Amino acid sequence: MASAEFWYEFASTYSYPAALRVASLAEERGVSVAWRPFLLGPIFAAQGWRDSPFNIYPAKGRYMWRDVQRTCDAMGVPLKRPEPFPQPSLLAARVALALEGDQRSNFSRQVYIAEFGQGLPIADRTTLAALLATCGADPVATLERAESDANKTLLKAECARAAAIGVVGAPCLVAEDGEVFWGNDRLEQGLDWAARRRARVSP
Amino acid sequence: MASAEFWYEFASTYSYPAALRVASLAEERGVSVAWRPFLLGPIFAAQGWRDSPFNIYPAKGRYMWRDVQRTCDAMGVPLKRPEPFPQPSLLAARVALALEGDQRSNFSRQVYIAEFGQGLPIADRTTLAALLATCGADPVATLERAESDANKTLLKAECARAAAIGVVGAPCLVAEDGEVFWGNDRLEQGLDWAARRRARVSP
Repeated sequence: MASAEFWYEFASTYSYPAALRVASLAEERGVSVAWRPFLLGPIFAAQGWRDSPFNIYPAKGRYMWRDVQRTCDAMGVPLKRPEPFPQPSLLAARVALALEGDQRSNFSRQVYIAEFGQGLPIADRTTLAALLATCGADPVATLERAESDANKTLLKAECARAAAIGVVGAPCLVAEDGEVFWGNDRLEQGLDWAARRRARVSP
Repeated sequence: MASAEFWYEFASTYSYPAALRVASLAEERGVSVAWRPFLLGPIFAAQGWRDSPFNIYPAKGRYMWRDVQRTCDAMGVPLKRPEPFPQPSLLAARVALALEGDQRSNFSRQVYIAEFGQGLPIADRTTLAALLATCGADPVATLERAESDANKTLLKAECARAAAIGVVGAPCLVAEDGEVFWGNDRLEQGLDWAARRRARVSP
């Protein structure tokens, strides 16, 4: 089966529609997707940014919110801006990384729906605990695992790997051959690519 | 007939495939397109950039060139990086603005094909004169008109208008109701929007 990696950042607006779309788009194409939570902070810091570029460059920020609104309207899903934006996403990323398989993808979708569908803060342990419970994960044990030194180190390594393979923003779809497709609007193209590449090597 | 504005910058890589695609996409949807050449320089300068963001942020630059290559491959058109990048686009923009109707769009497509299809410099008067001749425009008279004070002032006003209506990059498709769609990958969405908005007001 063809596979691809879905790299996402919980503070990223465009990752919200992408997280809701990627599973069904991948299934249609026979591609299995590995969900890879990461943080854009280190990548932005390397570019000299200490805030979201959508805040640093207000005209781009205004355009982005309008563009994401149109995307959500077309999908029939709500969009509500959380305050502050961007939300601190470190804890949510650690929790997602401490989960595996369907629990990770389900939890991640629930975080995005809370954050950008309902405008709720996601840095809060209580909020994340409630979302974990709805995904069938033990909140206490998962939060403890999320904040273990091993998991913190793993997330740092994931962020370094994202930068190394050419992830420049979020979300990114990365095919098995290393091709990087950046943006919610590149999901179909990236998954098509992943499916074709696999078809060539295993007929 | 529904209408839309196509804002483009000759130094912009994504404007190259967009310039080759926009006319047929618009015709399919019954939308007439006004070609609006402008310069990103003043808009970038307002954000503190004195070079292309693809040069300032090398990781984004690498991603962009690969992404544009994939786009050109899918369209079956060549891509060759001009040196230096970005090309000085002031004279080409002035010349395009000094033309009207089909001569402007034909000349603009020819500039993009020379610049990004063949990697030729476009700041050169001789190159631009040759392209004008292939479009049936008088090279000497057009260059003279392009460099008139009136045309220089007009281009400045166009750049100010672009910033005022929310053009944050190139290319942009702007519908009659003011909706801005940024990027080669938003052309279809923008033209669909322009066609629908018109359909509502004139059945």
